[in-house]
Amino acid sequence: MPLRAMLMSHAERPHDTEAVARAVLGAATCAETCTICADACLVEPNPTDLKSCIRMCLDCADICSATARVLGRPTWSEPARPVIAAQMAACALACRACALECARHAEHHAHCRICMEACEACALACADLLKTLPMAEAA
Amino acid sequence: MPLRAMLMSHAERPHDTEAVARAVLGAATCAETCTICADACLVEPNPTDLKSCIRMCLDCADICSATARVLGRPTWSEPARPVIAAQMAACALACRACALECARHAEHHAHCRICMEACEACALACADLLKTLPMAEAA
Amino acid sequence: MPLRAMLMSHAERPHDTEAVARAVLGAATCAETCTICADACLVEPNPTDLKSCIRMCLDCADICSATARVLGRPTWSEPARPVIAAQMAACALACRACALECARHAEHHAHCRICMEACEACALACADLLKTLPMAEAA
Amino acid sequence: MPLRAMLMSHAERPHDTEAVARAVLGAATCAETCTICADACLVEPNPTDLKSCIRMCLDCADICSATARVLGRPTWSEPARPVIAAQMAACALACRACALECARHAEHHAHCRICMEACEACALACADLLKTLPMAEAA
Repeated sequence: MPLRAMLMSHAERPHDTEAVARAVLGAATCAETCTICADACLVEPNPTDLKSCIRMCLDCADICSATARVLGRPTWSEPARPVIAAQMAACALACRACALECARHAEHHAHCRICMEACEACALACADLLKTLPMAEAA
Repeated sequence: MPLRAMLMSHAERPHDTEAVARAVLGAATCAETCTICADACLVEPNPTDLKSCIRMCLDCADICSATARVLGRPTWSEPARPVIAAQMAACALACRACALECARHAEHHAHCRICMEACEACALACADLLKTLPMAEAA
Repeated sequence: MPLRAMLMSHAERPHDTEAVARAVLGAATCAETCTICADACLVEPNPTDLKSCIRMCLDCADICSATARVLGRPTWSEPARPVIAAQMAACALACRACALECARHAEHHAHCRICMEACEACALACADLLKTLPMAEAA
Repeated sequence: MPLRAMLMSHAERPHDTEAVARAVLGAATCAETCTICADACLVEPNPTDLKSCIRMCLDCADICSATARVLGRPTWSEPARPVIAAQMAACALACRACALECARHAEHHAHCRICMEACEACALACADLLKTLPMAEAA
């Protein structure tokens, strides 16, 4: 994804283009792996055992999709900043919860293992970006 | 929207169907009014004056869309509960910020006044639902 | 949803505000009932029997969400018109397919019956709106 | 994005994993570049001149988001196939229209040039994938 170039050409370039680009890519990637993982779990022979994983993946996909969009609009001044921070915090929480759930099935299903890694990467990218914000108490 | 009936027919009916239905309706309505308000602001004669309103409406629309979807899956047991709570908290924050921004233009633009009311209703519905959760420290 | 009032206050009011408002409401409602129906199917005792229904509901929810957003921006002049028409046509197709799938389970699951009705209503509203377009060959 | 690996680990692996992975990546990338391009256009000194570009980018972002999700669920058998085909056709149309609009501003704004390229790539990937479907008359 040409995210750095897009953000660099934005007149209100974010304070840390690299960190924002990583978080957008992390969230967009996680949204898609969670969408695929939910469907892949559903068609396994034992979908009932994977019920929690499917639901958590669908929640995580929706939260990551919204986060990728919100972070793509680098409105880092007040009053948007605390809103973006809260959304990133919710995203990091969702990704950590989904990673834990996927980890339980990672040994048996490659899609759960790959999805777990995407969740962990997104949680980390969001947490890193939150740290660069001068004001992070919003979440 | 037939939300109460849908949630009542769900085998894992939420703890407070009325409160969940109100929050889902609030978020779905707000997502749509914010989407329309952003576009209506853009085609006003003075879009530059409404720049903050447009961006805040687009952020709020994305966050409300995700919240309406997540609340439609009543996964209120651990580990999803803190994730849902954090997403609702982010949604309430986004709606309050968007309502304040729309309020600045409500006198001149009917779409900003109606959008402000939808944002306030969604913020209230999310806050009310958060209060019914035994554990609300997650956000 | 205050959709008529929002569209009426838009400077580029659509050619047929009533028809657009019905289609937006139909798509937003269907997106939410499909989201809930997929989750309700998943927690039934026999999710494997409902696998096709779950997947179709998730597809339909995503397509309806996008359609509700696109129709909320009444950009009915060229070059957006054929794009909107094609999206509405895809939405009507998804809703008809999802209604047929839900109909197979409507007798046993109230959520499938309600979701089927929401799908049918959305398909009809999109088809009606498509008919009002002078140029409809785009789909 | 680890799309190929995710699709390869899916028990109902699509008929042409490479083509599906390219289309998902194309749509997810285009959704994000269009989201950023709309915001970048809005904060340029002359947003009124870019009004059509902003609206088209927002439409294209919504349609691409839905397409990326739908293609992530490889439900290629009937009855989902014509639905997926229609959504891909709408996506290709949206991307071509958005590429044309962005092309008009590509000389002056790097974000429009990059977004145009992402739109063209997505339109091509969707068209290529449509060709691999035995039945493509649905769109």
